[in-house]
Amino acid sequence: MQVMNSGWTQIEEDIARKAFEIAYKRETSALIDSVRHKVSGLTEIDDMWQLHDFLSVKRHEVDGRYDYNLPTLVFIFAGLIKDGWITLNELEGLNADKIAKIIALTYM
Amino acid sequence: MQVMNSGWTQIEEDIARKAFEIAYKRETSALIDSVRHKVSGLTEIDDMWQLHDFLSVKRHEVDGRYDYNLPTLVFIFAGLIKDGWITLNELEGLNADKIAKIIALTYM
Repeated sequence: MQVMNSGWTQIEEDIARKAFEIAYKRETSALIDSVRHKVSGLTEIDDMWQLHDFLSVKRHEVDGRYDYNLPTLVFIFAGLIKDGWITLNELEGLNADKIAKIIALTYM
Repeated sequence: MQVMNSGWTQIEEDIARKAFEIAYKRETSALIDSVRHKVSGLTEIDDMWQLHDFLSVKRHEVDGRYDYNLPTLVFIFAGLIKDGWITLNELEGLNADKIAKIIALTYM
């Protein structure tokens, strides 16, 4: 087994990166749908400023979350599973230790 | 003629406040329409962050501009006329000195 960085094999890195991209695509697509929905019912400027506040929070969350970084990846995946953006099945191929850590973190 | 504050009569204040509210309504309605249009063509998250940046700028502009304050009102009205949110006709009833100042400021 070829171990590359921080105990992740190249195969694991490929799985992680793919899952990461899937989650990013799902979360950002859901955000776009959500903004479309909010805008369709928007009639007052105060609602627009609320949308602006909502986007400020979401941008901060998304920028913070999708910082691909191997040492923190188990924490990120636990969060993505908790929030429903990926399933554990989509991480199939990571070693048992990593999967166990991710599962444990989803209960925190 | 009853002069109230900073050389503005009550009648002038009523005209000013009404014009101010009309401009605010027009500018914010146009902004809502513009956001609807932008969102309708939005497919990528980077476009969404551009919309967020756009709203940040507009919110700053609108909050800054619509601060009803008698001493600066001639400057505000000149800006509103230049940007097409009110016409000079909608300020009819202000005294000749104020109208002359507003017209002069629109050329700056």
